Amino acid sequence: MAKILRVNMTDRTATYEDVPDAYKFLGGRGLTSTIIHDEVDPTCHPLGPNNKLVFAPGIITGTNAPTSGRVSAGAKSPLTGGIKESNAGSAWPQLVARLGIKAIVVEGYPQDDGWWGLHVTKDGAEFFPADEYVGKSLYEIFPGLFDRFGDKVGIATIGVAGEMRMAMAGICFNDIDNRPSRYSGRGGLGAVMGSKHLKFIIVDGEGAPGVEIADKALFDQGRKKMLEALRSHDITKPGGGLNSYGTAVLVNIINEAGGFPTHNFREGRFEGAAKISGEAMAEYCETRGGVGTMGHPCHPGCVIRCSNVIPNPDGTELVSVIEYETTWALGANCGIADLDVIGKLTWLCNDIGLDTIEAGGTIAVAMEAGLAEFGDGQRAIELLEEIRKGTPLGHVLGNGAAATGKVFGVVRVPAVKGQNMPAYEPRAIKGIGMTYAISTMGADHTSGYTIAPEILGVAGKVDQFDVDKAELVRNFQYATAFIDSTGHCLFIAFAILDIPEGFEGMVEEVNGVLGTDWTGDDVARIGKEILDKELAFNRAAGFTKADDRLPEFMKYEKLPPHEVVWDVPDETLDAVFGA
Amino acid sequence: MAKILRVNMTDRTATYEDVPDAYKFLGGRGLTSTIIHDEVDPTCHPLGPNNKLVFAPGIITGTNAPTSGRVSAGAKSPLTGGIKESNAGSAWPQLVARLGIKAIVVEGYPQDDGWWGLHVTKDGAEFFPADEYVGKSLYEIFPGLFDRFGDKVGIATIGVAGEMRMAMAGICFNDIDNRPSRYSGRGGLGAVMGSKHLKFIIVDGEGAPGVEIADKALFDQGRKKMLEALRSHDITKPGGGLNSYGTAVLVNIINEAGGFPTHNFREGRFEGAAKISGEAMAEYCETRGGVGTMGHPCHPGCVIRCSNVIPNPDGTELVSVIEYETTWALGANCGIADLDVIGKLTWLCNDIGLDTIEAGGTIAVAMEAGLAEFGDGQRAIELLEEIRKGTPLGHVLGNGAAATGKVFGVVRVPAVKGQNMPAYEPRAIKGIGMTYAISTMGADHTSGYTIAPEILGVAGKVDQFDVDKAELVRNFQYATAFIDSTGHCLFIAFAILDIPEGFEGMVEEVNGVLGTDWTGDDVARIGKEILDKELAFNRAAGFTKADDRLPEFMKYEKLPPHEVVWDVPDETLDAVFGA
Repeated sequence: MAKILRVNMTDRTATYEDVPDAYKFLGGRGLTSTIIHDEVDPTCHPLGPNNKLVFAPGIITGTNAPTSGRVSAGAKSPLTGGIKESNAGSAWPQLVARLGIKAIVVEGYPQDDGWWGLHVTKDGAEFFPADEYVGKSLYEIFPGLFDRFGDKVGIATIGVAGEMRMAMAGICFNDIDNRPSRYSGRGGLGAVMGSKHLKFIIVDGEGAPGVEIADKALFDQGRKKMLEALRSHDITKPGGGLNSYGTAVLVNIINEAGGFPTHNFREGRFEGAAKISGEAMAEYCETRGGVGTMGHPCHPGCVIRCSNVIPNPDGTELVSVIEYETTWALGANCGIADLDVIGKLTWLCNDIGLDTIEAGGTIAVAMEAGLAEFGDGQRAIELLEEIRKGTPLGHVLGNGAAATGKVFGVVRVPAVKGQNMPAYEPRAIKGIGMTYAISTMGADHTSGYTIAPEILGVAGKVDQFDVDKAELVRNFQYATAFIDSTGHCLFIAFAILDIPEGFEGMVEEVNGVLGTDWTGDDVARIGKEILDKELAFNRAAGFTKADDRLPEFMKYEKLPPHEVVWDVPDETLDAVFGA
Repeated sequence: MAKILRVNMTDRTATYEDVPDAYKFLGGRGLTSTIIHDEVDPTCHPLGPNNKLVFAPGIITGTNAPTSGRVSAGAKSPLTGGIKESNAGSAWPQLVARLGIKAIVVEGYPQDDGWWGLHVTKDGAEFFPADEYVGKSLYEIFPGLFDRFGDKVGIATIGVAGEMRMAMAGICFNDIDNRPSRYSGRGGLGAVMGSKHLKFIIVDGEGAPGVEIADKALFDQGRKKMLEALRSHDITKPGGGLNSYGTAVLVNIINEAGGFPTHNFREGRFEGAAKISGEAMAEYCETRGGVGTMGHPCHPGCVIRCSNVIPNPDGTELVSVIEYETTWALGANCGIADLDVIGKLTWLCNDIGLDTIEAGGTIAVAMEAGLAEFGDGQRAIELLEEIRKGTPLGHVLGNGAAATGKVFGVVRVPAVKGQNMPAYEPRAIKGIGMTYAISTMGADHTSGYTIAPEILGVAGKVDQFDVDKAELVRNFQYATAFIDSTGHCLFIAFAILDIPEGFEGMVEEVNGVLGTDWTGDDVARIGKEILDKELAFNRAAGFTKADDRLPEFMKYEKLPPHEVVWDVPDETLDAVFGA
């Protein structure tokens, strides 16, 4: 039977507990949000002794279902002050799941200055002193960790930003080549880990029993349907958009739609877009050669393979990975049209332990405040180095765009619930703006990726400017909360929305593992149950409808090229989840 | 008939408007909070184009009623995000009232980089360019202003902190000797004034018609009762506690009660208390001589006279004024037991344009973050100079204790709704803690000074540790909202709570001016109406009961010497104003 591993940093104990019946069918986001809802006082200080940090692999993570190596990390967020689930793809949760661990709950509070790692194997979990690794570059310490613990382990860790309890600190997982490059980036969960002085959770899957599967035949049937759907949809198939150009295939598309936020959300189109697009990355890989790779997987068993390794001019490694969000945040949003600079900035984020979206959003707000000129890549690099050094300016920036805006008196701060918006302009694409507004997570495209129908024509095509999208937004959020619980990457959504057999496959995989008999209708029901818990937590933390709003400037500043303002009525926003 | 002066910074117009009937009987806080409630979108950005800044003299301000030269400044606060009324004593509102101006409403937004002053005389209001005064020390520019506009004018202004839109920037008024030393300090209203590029409102009372008084006989009768009450109560009478030792007469009293927050609210008693007390100030005045003065009034016509001028060792002026809150904030709370250092810090706050309470609270949190050692006065001075210079660290500090705590990951931040607590420890004095928690203003002792019965035995004596004080707290807040509307200083409360004729006198003064026939019962009714508007504004701005709470650390950290935690039940807090 799977267990919950409870890690107490007050007395440094690690205890395996039976999984309560109520948690038996949960995984991923459903499990992290439920544990946070059940165990954490919503009014606690996010960096104080009463917050908890929960990791949970998805329900089918650790199996051979395709594209299912996702982990949810959850806590009360130091960035938003609300509940947070932040999702990453890595081998790490696959190893956790195969060891029979359904969740790792980190609680308690350090009683002295010491830092610790936790080493989890089939024989149990043990602490080791980690002070020697503190204050250092993640790229620098990673090789030694794999030397010490074996090159097949999975590592969850934080960089110096997390050690300094900065609200844009992410939690870093190793990628398939053991780089420190896969991130549960959003919401500052690295700061929560840092507040507990837990530097690592290192997981060794050697001899692991594997994930229990209640009905292997049903699971296999579902897995095959899913595989077939992913392999046949234009967006997810081998040689398809994501595989060929990475997530940055979106750059030209969103730019063309006038929804590519540029210069800190002053415009919706960037003249340098083509230079920072997925097509440009693919060209770098082809013309520069060397280690350059498109179609790189973020975890073993992914068939979409939308990651990449971007080469320097000499073919050596610049960085892995530049995502759409990354090239936008550190590129267009800062007015930087140079992939080499964006690659360097991305590398710095990985090295320091930062969410690239929040980092780019913060640099842009800092540019707004006059700390740098838009387009000045060298200065952007210096700003990230300020964060690493922990200077006063670095502490400001490390706490994200909203904090930076507050400190420097900037009014144009594109954040909701304290979290900077990602790479889609809400004034030009109304449904994603509604999602930003009402998400339990703060401005977050992954809570309901309405870009699919609004821009990509997946699951039908709707007008990007139409404001009557309460139902669409609600349904996407429910379905997403379910997908985030399965352990599948959200990108399966393209295939399962357009291909009914893919959707069936997802439900069958989950039923196969859990022994449940859920139908398609249960997907929305279960998604709603998760959202309801998250909403309840946020209400108790003090959030109201007044927090479900986009920043005021978007209502009176027109966005080029479409010259549109944010005009979705508050009543429509409030209708998504009801009063 | 009195007018409202509406100042638009978009097109730089200043227009006199008739007072709407609904505002006819309002003044001071009642008027500022009503205008903010009626005209400002609670969800607007405090530093954006849609916030407004309102000044209103009290109902009887400008008359010869004793101790009535108070002004209310109101806006949506950049510090708390809620409604704010911040109160100061100066000749400025007396001149405004005598010119027949019931309120000045500053709205709109600058369209370029220019700064402006407004010169208000009996002939109207005119703008003048103020760029030459920007970026400078207030002590440096004040003499030239009085040379230029006449030494009888009143000046409302901001320092460089307000120009930089920092959330601890106050609005400064001249004192009776034309120093820049009387402040509407709390809540960052100086940043709102700065966001509008309004550097001054200079008021010339020459030829002013004076305040209209509907029933002169009734007014005089009330005024005499008030005068008699103030002159006979031990706390307010000539030679009484406030007059002899200033507000800092409280230092030894609150310290003895174990409620004197020390070292950023780590302890409730300060071993250096005697050295920074009102008694010590009086001794400085006596032994050092020179300009040293206790019993200095903050505005013409005050009979309490609790201000002071503190001398240097050579008898020259160190600073005016060191209040109780100031000597606590910049002294005990930072572990500094040296009045000369506290005086220098106070002078810097006046000069830069800072709220001394928030400044001291912020330095203490910075000390908590390791930016200085507790007790290091020289470093505290340097930190204020960082604010003046507008360095990144200065911008952090200039945004107050909560922002500083957030940026540096400090958990022990004694703030409510983003505003640092003043000089009374809530764990040791429960009623004032309840007041901090539920006040519409954030942590604010002046919204309901329950210290009177809890420590001073005014209006009866209640146990400081008793938690059953919902009714007491409510009644104090209602009565205070009324007093804040009259234009009387809150310190009349001591006399009117203990002396029924004093209370009658207050009501008669107001009825005399307005021609109303209010009774004592109307005081609570009117106070409640004001609070209800403020509460409605805050609810619409997104505040909930979760914001009506003290910081979590006070629930689990015991405060010496009484070893008490914050233990007032949430239900008791919620009972004060109901659901």
